[in-house]
Amino acid sequence: MRRAHFHWDVRVYYEDTDAAGIVYYANYLKFMERARTEWLRSRGFDQSSLREQRGIVFVVTRLDVRYLKPARLDAQLRVMLELTRMGRAGFDMCQQVESGPDSLCTANVRIGCLDAVSMRPRRVPDTLLTELTCDR
Amino acid sequence: MRRAHFHWDVRVYYEDTDAAGIVYYANYLKFMERARTEWLRSRGFDQSSLREQRGIVFVVTRLDVRYLKPARLDAQLRVMLELTRMGRAGFDMCQQVESGPDSLCTANVRIGCLDAVSMRPRRVPDTLLTELTCDR
Amino acid sequence: MRRAHFHWDVRVYYEDTDAAGIVYYANYLKFMERARTEWLRSRGFDQSSLREQRGIVFVVTRLDVRYLKPARLDAQLRVMLELTRMGRAGFDMCQQVESGPDSLCTANVRIGCLDAVSMRPRRVPDTLLTELTCDR
Amino acid sequence: MRRAHFHWDVRVYYEDTDAAGIVYYANYLKFMERARTEWLRSRGFDQSSLREQRGIVFVVTRLDVRYLKPARLDAQLRVMLELTRMGRAGFDMCQQVESGPDSLCTANVRIGCLDAVSMRPRRVPDTLLTELTCDR
Repeated sequence: MRRAHFHWDVRVYYEDTDAAGIVYYANYLKFMERARTEWLRSRGFDQSSLREQRGIVFVVTRLDVRYLKPARLDAQLRVMLELTRMGRAGFDMCQQVESGPDSLCTANVRIGCLDAVSMRPRRVPDTLLTELTCDR
Repeated sequence: MRRAHFHWDVRVYYEDTDAAGIVYYANYLKFMERARTEWLRSRGFDQSSLREQRGIVFVVTRLDVRYLKPARLDAQLRVMLELTRMGRAGFDMCQQVESGPDSLCTANVRIGCLDAVSMRPRRVPDTLLTELTCDR
Repeated sequence: MRRAHFHWDVRVYYEDTDAAGIVYYANYLKFMERARTEWLRSRGFDQSSLREQRGIVFVVTRLDVRYLKPARLDAQLRVMLELTRMGRAGFDMCQQVESGPDSLCTANVRIGCLDAVSMRPRRVPDTLLTELTCDR
Repeated sequence: MRRAHFHWDVRVYYEDTDAAGIVYYANYLKFMERARTEWLRSRGFDQSSLREQRGIVFVVTRLDVRYLKPARLDAQLRVMLELTRMGRAGFDMCQQVESGPDSLCTANVRIGCLDAVSMRPRRVPDTLLTELTCDR
């Protein structure tokens, strides 16, 4: 398996900031989720189709975030994503939010595959496993 | 029909503010929805039960908001609610967000009753109509 | 004065939706603010520079929204913007959120120009007035 | 030093949920921040006063979260907080979000004390250090 790399750019709007003048800490998790969603989409998978047609949802089960530098209004950010482990139960990613040469925030993210109705663990479908780990 | 009055208090946290140092304009809509939810709950109706057991959701179909004064971090706000019209298709409310003697934001809100699956208009169930408009 | 037209595309992520399966009503206001911000940026004005260098902020003072159809996860939306009035105290806009041929949400938005510190009304600077209303 | 314990109750509204029918993963961070804010307030410190009068802000510098079970609309949650380390540079907390007997989410949170303008590290003022760690 070759490691999957992907990046997605996001702009900081008023909605993302707080009264300290910086991006609110929970909102980096939104940025990181947008990048994961677009990575899945780039591989041919919409989360809405996964839920409606295959009955699965991907959820974050563990998250280790380090906040290094704050981002401010109007900043143009790049969210990096690297798949570090892919398994039957889900996958692990390393994500980083960057502003130009600065790393603002890094995270290790564990994603689990759940049944969309029962919210219990389910195996990642084979086609996803194959497609998400193939060499591009 | 007597007019229903209700109020619900909310505190302003960092999550609610933006880089201008004030509550972000969309977040007043969250405060107003919390008050509507708690008013329904005070009358015996949870929105989750309405959706799961009766298959209906209430959605805002029209909204006219005036922003008068900004709220800041740590402010203690009171959200007022007055039912101004109750009908078969939904209801109208007048809502106001206050901070002490100051009115910060007023809104006329039209709520429609929809089928939770098709998202098409549905009649408000009789029991709700009776309970929501009864004299308390 | 010729009317300014502008549009900005946004994608619906999990963060934008709620348990009814649709975009949460307050989040359309975020989409509309992104479009206004990008329109200002396309005319050469960053809101952060306006605040820090000129000491002004633009705030919504009135908002009249009609919600017509719901948007769902993964939808690609287009936010339209038309400047309908430009004055010394602020400006008016007509905004619309579209999904393909469908209009999901329309809004009349009044924007006021405030002093960034006192939050009191201030005249829109001449350079902005000229630049925002010029023919493009 | 005795360990400080605190809890704060939050209700799940539509704003907190997503199209998977559960609380969006970033929103637990809002709940946890509300509890930290109310703990500070219970000890006599408003974050707005800390910023405006003492020129400091507390920011999360590291976060390790485990998501165990999802919360749904209308759930009544209890956010637990335990101060595990207090130092010159900031403090560490252990937080847990509970729904009745269930633990939904646990987190280790590291908080740093920053200068509100430069956003550089600053020593926690002595009065805070004393007050936050005193026996209650």
